[in-house]
Amino acid sequence: MDTTILLGHGSGGKLSHDLIKNLFVRHFSNDILLQQTDSAIIDCSQGRLAFTADSFVVEPIFFPGGDIGKLSVAGTVNDLAVSGALPLWFSASFIIEEGFSFSDLERIVISMSEEAKKAGVKIVTGDTKVVNRGKCDKIFITTSGIGSIHERNIHIGTGKNICPGDKIILNGTLADHGMAVMAAREELSFKTDIISDCSCLNHLIADALDATREMKFMRDPTRGGLATVLNELAEKKTFGIEIDESLIPVNENVRGMCELLGFDPLYVANEGKVVMVVPEEDTGSVLAALKNNELGRQAAIIGEIVSEHPGKAWLKTGIGGKRIIDMLAGEQLPRIC
Amino acid sequence: MDTTILLGHGSGGKLSHDLIKNLFVRHFSNDILLQQTDSAIIDCSQGRLAFTADSFVVEPIFFPGGDIGKLSVAGTVNDLAVSGALPLWFSASFIIEEGFSFSDLERIVISMSEEAKKAGVKIVTGDTKVVNRGKCDKIFITTSGIGSIHERNIHIGTGKNICPGDKIILNGTLADHGMAVMAAREELSFKTDIISDCSCLNHLIADALDATREMKFMRDPTRGGLATVLNELAEKKTFGIEIDESLIPVNENVRGMCELLGFDPLYVANEGKVVMVVPEEDTGSVLAALKNNELGRQAAIIGEIVSEHPGKAWLKTGIGGKRIIDMLAGEQLPRIC
Repeated sequence: MDTTILLGHGSGGKLSHDLIKNLFVRHFSNDILLQQTDSAIIDCSQGRLAFTADSFVVEPIFFPGGDIGKLSVAGTVNDLAVSGALPLWFSASFIIEEGFSFSDLERIVISMSEEAKKAGVKIVTGDTKVVNRGKCDKIFITTSGIGSIHERNIHIGTGKNICPGDKIILNGTLADHGMAVMAAREELSFKTDIISDCSCLNHLIADALDATREMKFMRDPTRGGLATVLNELAEKKTFGIEIDESLIPVNENVRGMCELLGFDPLYVANEGKVVMVVPEEDTGSVLAALKNNELGRQAAIIGEIVSEHPGKAWLKTGIGGKRIIDMLAGEQLPRIC
Repeated sequence: MDTTILLGHGSGGKLSHDLIKNLFVRHFSNDILLQQTDSAIIDCSQGRLAFTADSFVVEPIFFPGGDIGKLSVAGTVNDLAVSGALPLWFSASFIIEEGFSFSDLERIVISMSEEAKKAGVKIVTGDTKVVNRGKCDKIFITTSGIGSIHERNIHIGTGKNICPGDKIILNGTLADHGMAVMAAREELSFKTDIISDCSCLNHLIADALDATREMKFMRDPTRGGLATVLNELAEKKTFGIEIDESLIPVNENVRGMCELLGFDPLYVANEGKVVMVVPEEDTGSVLAALKNNELGRQAAIIGEIVSEHPGKAWLKTGIGGKRIIDMLAGEQLPRIC
């Protein structure tokens, strides 16, 4: 066991998983937490609810395509939406550094407000703490969200009904968010036109749900990227996953920056992407529904569920080889969200 | 309007109220947020829910009587309980400084787990972010909580049914938490035996609810202290408040430290106290119920609702005078919770 917290413990990769399993799940242990889905699914006398929370520490706080406020709403909307829930009520808690500019705070709050309106959610409660100068970096925002979840969607978060032959669909290009934030960092004197994909996906996802008799699984590839989602999905399952690198959409400028800096787009964070597992016979209607929405224009089938190599995700590389997709070991991009 | 964020914007006092009113409520505006109660009360097809969130940045993270973990559970349990809700499901989000000790993190997590068990709540979701060394101070925790709320308790948060003659009850001594944390700070080489009152009050509050036909109002006097609660309660109302200083329980060591450092116990944060407004005829049964619980042994009637000076809270001082109780103007004790 490690003795100090490393940046990798916040990466979304292997160290994060170990921390969650060995510390949080062990001590907070209860039936709902043990599901380990993106949102907790709560069965109660009031019906079925989805509940999720996320802290946002992105640096810089303003980046092409978004800011920490927009991100803090979209991230939590998406966690609920990929759980098959209708996002409804939000909390927003702020930790602010003394001396932070009021106009920047207002810009962030307006951005949250606009994003909440677009998504149709209400920010109903919250908190503000201010810490002395130098005791936090500008502003951190934690949002939590409650959604209602329909009976027919309860297995989306766990992928319980997935079987070989199901297709894996992605709604667009990979790695835009991670590279946009990287390029915006002061220490990199980088000029690019990369824009973060930061968006609320709940309306897009609602369209996709209407286009299939059974959405078998959804998850948003944020920290740790697509590779982490595929690993989490395959883990301890009786099926394997095969992805074709040549089918994964990546913008040219993003691909260029990834190559230059030595990043694999498969591991880079996205904030407006969703991975879906869909029965083969419904792939056409789901793809059509996605492409009909601005946030799904470049949607593509990127791979499928197979009966071979259970528990593992494999990638057919562009040059015709095959390699296993591992979990991210350390931290690739600290403070990307 | 201020141009930068000051410590006072996180004080719970006047600057905090201005920030909430002029920024958050203005932009996030919706019917539920406008209630401005301790927990948002949500009427939905699933029934009536209470929803609240709080960030904790207390320094030091370990103090006599508790730690940031215990505080992060108790604080949110209490926000739900004073809204008349049964606390049920919690989220816990961690922002951790790179290099933070794993054993300290485990100690905090165990403390949260124990407190959650005592209160009967489940921590069902959460998040962990790690920021580079020097970019936050050790660890910040944000919790949010959902509770279910019974029809008969819906006016507790707003105090809608309060009328002159109602009595104001406090469950014990003031200012223990604030002074315990102050004394634990390294820069003060203070030796005291003051212990924080940090506790979950939900079971105590349930006992009190059973002892009256109508609990008219409850709130926990945290940041900003009793003075802030009384100001919030009286604001824009047709009644006034009168409190008798000689009836407010304060531990001798706490009174001594307050005098030495120039603090008024009325403005110092508590983390195991609740202010109740109870119909006169039920004060005996409520007091008896409180005193029967370990967390209410020193419960006392400290004042009453009056028809005079509407909108204002007055204090009869120990030496026989009377003074108005103002809202806290700046920040008295940064990072007390």
